[in-house]
Amino acid sequence: MKITIWNENKHEKTNPKVAEIYPEGIHGALAKIFEGTEHQVQTATLEQPEHGLTEDVLNNTDVLFWWGHMAHHEVSDDIVDRVHKRVLEGMGLVVLHSGHFSKIFKKLMGTSCDLKWREADDRERLWVVDPTHPIAEGIGEYFELEKEEMYGEHFDIPAPDELVFVSWFEGGEVFRSGCTYKRGNGKIFYFRPGHETYPTYYNQDVQKVLVNAANWVKPVDRAYPTYGNAKPIEEISAKN
Amino acid sequence: MKITIWNENKHEKTNPKVAEIYPEGIHGALAKIFEGTEHQVQTATLEQPEHGLTEDVLNNTDVLFWWGHMAHHEVSDDIVDRVHKRVLEGMGLVVLHSGHFSKIFKKLMGTSCDLKWREADDRERLWVVDPTHPIAEGIGEYFELEKEEMYGEHFDIPAPDELVFVSWFEGGEVFRSGCTYKRGNGKIFYFRPGHETYPTYYNQDVQKVLVNAANWVKPVDRAYPTYGNAKPIEEISAKN
Amino acid sequence: MKITIWNENKHEKTNPKVAEIYPEGIHGALAKIFEGTEHQVQTATLEQPEHGLTEDVLNNTDVLFWWGHMAHHEVSDDIVDRVHKRVLEGMGLVVLHSGHFSKIFKKLMGTSCDLKWREADDRERLWVVDPTHPIAEGIGEYFELEKEEMYGEHFDIPAPDELVFVSWFEGGEVFRSGCTYKRGNGKIFYFRPGHETYPTYYNQDVQKVLVNAANWVKPVDRAYPTYGNAKPIEEISAKN
Amino acid sequence: MKITIWNENKHEKTNPKVAEIYPEGIHGALAKIFEGTEHQVQTATLEQPEHGLTEDVLNNTDVLFWWGHMAHHEVSDDIVDRVHKRVLEGMGLVVLHSGHFSKIFKKLMGTSCDLKWREADDRERLWVVDPTHPIAEGIGEYFELEKEEMYGEHFDIPAPDELVFVSWFEGGEVFRSGCTYKRGNGKIFYFRPGHETYPTYYNQDVQKVLVNAANWVKPVDRAYPTYGNAKPIEEISAKN
Repeated sequence: MKITIWNENKHEKTNPKVAEIYPEGIHGALAKIFEGTEHQVQTATLEQPEHGLTEDVLNNTDVLFWWGHMAHHEVSDDIVDRVHKRVLEGMGLVVLHSGHFSKIFKKLMGTSCDLKWREADDRERLWVVDPTHPIAEGIGEYFELEKEEMYGEHFDIPAPDELVFVSWFEGGEVFRSGCTYKRGNGKIFYFRPGHETYPTYYNQDVQKVLVNAANWVKPVDRAYPTYGNAKPIEEISAKN
Repeated sequence: MKITIWNENKHEKTNPKVAEIYPEGIHGALAKIFEGTEHQVQTATLEQPEHGLTEDVLNNTDVLFWWGHMAHHEVSDDIVDRVHKRVLEGMGLVVLHSGHFSKIFKKLMGTSCDLKWREADDRERLWVVDPTHPIAEGIGEYFELEKEEMYGEHFDIPAPDELVFVSWFEGGEVFRSGCTYKRGNGKIFYFRPGHETYPTYYNQDVQKVLVNAANWVKPVDRAYPTYGNAKPIEEISAKN
Repeated sequence: MKITIWNENKHEKTNPKVAEIYPEGIHGALAKIFEGTEHQVQTATLEQPEHGLTEDVLNNTDVLFWWGHMAHHEVSDDIVDRVHKRVLEGMGLVVLHSGHFSKIFKKLMGTSCDLKWREADDRERLWVVDPTHPIAEGIGEYFELEKEEMYGEHFDIPAPDELVFVSWFEGGEVFRSGCTYKRGNGKIFYFRPGHETYPTYYNQDVQKVLVNAANWVKPVDRAYPTYGNAKPIEEISAKN
Repeated sequence: MKITIWNENKHEKTNPKVAEIYPEGIHGALAKIFEGTEHQVQTATLEQPEHGLTEDVLNNTDVLFWWGHMAHHEVSDDIVDRVHKRVLEGMGLVVLHSGHFSKIFKKLMGTSCDLKWREADDRERLWVVDPTHPIAEGIGEYFELEKEEMYGEHFDIPAPDELVFVSWFEGGEVFRSGCTYKRGNGKIFYFRPGHETYPTYYNQDVQKVLVNAANWVKPVDRAYPTYGNAKPIEEISAKN
């Protein structure tokens, strides 16, 4: 599987605390998770030409991870359209944490994707509500993050096709933290944790979920549907 | 609308604390909620002949509420089959709290309907995750019950057709607290709150939800589908 | 309920056959369906200033019907954004037939909304696959349209929240013809039939479905969720 | 993966036409599909002790296929309960054709599972409505069975978690032909084709679907949830 990890890569340069936690960037830490797997992994960041998401890169990507936060508006609409087209063609997409507000996620969801948030070191517990789901493979009944940013309902998303995780927060909120969607020929997984000021992506359960997610969103091997003017059954049969 | 409220009515007779909270029984308190509405309300309890759910009663019921806990096993299988048949025919069903373990709910779900629980005066917050749903009409973003029994995930139910409420509990758990289902021609709503030792059914938000639920599960007016051997289109057309 | 019926109103002016079937325009025929109901109905068309969808009109609309086909591209993006905002706020939307390719439907779905089609007077049968749904109230097991344009799968939409109708076409295709969605606080119903060269909107079953749909998508009465920075439970409790 | 194929194996003994098509029984033909795969396949039939589904057999089964028709009532309730328990524990289940009326499928669905049917050599077309689904991998936009028994809506099942195939029938019907469900820790796939008097299980697309289905329903590797009385978060933390 060919995995491309996209990261805005801004906090790492402007916030020493983030730089300390993720010296190689959030994308670097995410890439490391797939080291030693059979998958090919590359990274791409906002500051690169075409944000590192050229036609060539996307055409050679089976699964795209997306982390962004402070610079969603800096992502060019043309690149967003290009990613959108590839998702509809079958490319898997894993949207992380504050990526809920990315142009690509909002375009795929059709909603505001707004939510409640609080930076107060809330303890978070992610409960598995779908024990049959491959994305929860190897995960216990819940796993805990000692400190994270809180995200709370209402989360303005379409009802997920599948709800895998629901988060509990110490401060009194719940959140649909692991959501699957299908758009066109592509599968999408939104996963809540990963605020830049916490070492969340080093957590082993979080890492398991991300590996599982990549396997789950990967494209299936089939011809793309044909659209437009269609012949009736008799003519089709006549042809054969 | 014709509403029948079924209650096991056992805790009220054996536990003075419950009797004090619900002097007319949980069924009595639930019936009061619909006083002054245009609906006809009657109650039925376990100790009555046929548990108060005769053919005649069920055939004259549009919406059935169900509260049971300590005596699920005392409900006769014949009556369960009769209620099941009526749900498939279109009768609405609202299953309350410990009714998750009732024979009728398990029969309709096809799962164990098991869950985690704790009696420790947990504070509960019910968050609305589907703001479009008529069952949430008039409810704020969440409502709170100062003390309730905790129910926690994993709740062994099929993924709900619609998830309306998710509960947060002080002790660290979350729960899918408001779930809709469709079975045959009938609609079902499961609503979590209502442990017998708390005055939950006097809470105004809980009462709003129950009134909304009755309106949502009520039958639609259409002919029952026909099943079995069917004619092809030509013969049907020939007939017309 | 305040209903606004939007129509592109182009075929009626350029195609005598359409003008003959719909002398008052498709919007005129749709408006007539609600005559004698308690609802207020107004119409709006593409050629009007702001396409007839001013802030004032939309703020006074509970349910918006949308029929468009040859001029989707002529609908201004600003108006599409305005309608989108109102749907997220709770306004109901009923998208008809070739409206599947409208800017507003594509924006809400996040997909291409493409499909197969054929103009060959196919006989269509719309089968009810959800007998519990209020949108199917009063409809038999199926209803038939003697001649319609064919729409065939794959229909590139997100999996519907609820699938109410599936169409059978004489030429060999099936189609998900009645689909419900929720976006933000708003409900959406897509309904397939209604090609401009057939008198489909005079069909009594089609008319029943449209009246049922208006009732189903109408807004629920509740406060809009709040988003953004949130206080933890202690501070909220302290406040009270 | 350990696959067990269960077949009633009655038509093969009483109907020469069926015996001619399936000389080794439907179970034999199904087992052959997995020859040359890495999976272990065994078969079980009604006439065997415990219908061939002993505790030992089921505990060593990852995926169970089920074909039955004329003798559903001969399947003992104890064995049905045993299979049901294993599905809730995570065993995958693929229910074929007339298995829609099997005790195990009805117990898992909670509905009558009734439908329309006709034996008239209808041509069937199975359209893929979910192009992202692994069960549709390698399948075209549709595949055709020249002659099959017709099954028509309304099919009295809960709304599928995922709808993969919709069938078109020459005689004027549609049918939800490929449906996924989750119950407890187990995944279920219902697949319509396979009437005993047609050589359907030799069709290469049907065979692809069955192999894909086995892979999709197979259990995920995780601990079974715990249910019952639970400790609050402080005590859990204290323990750690």
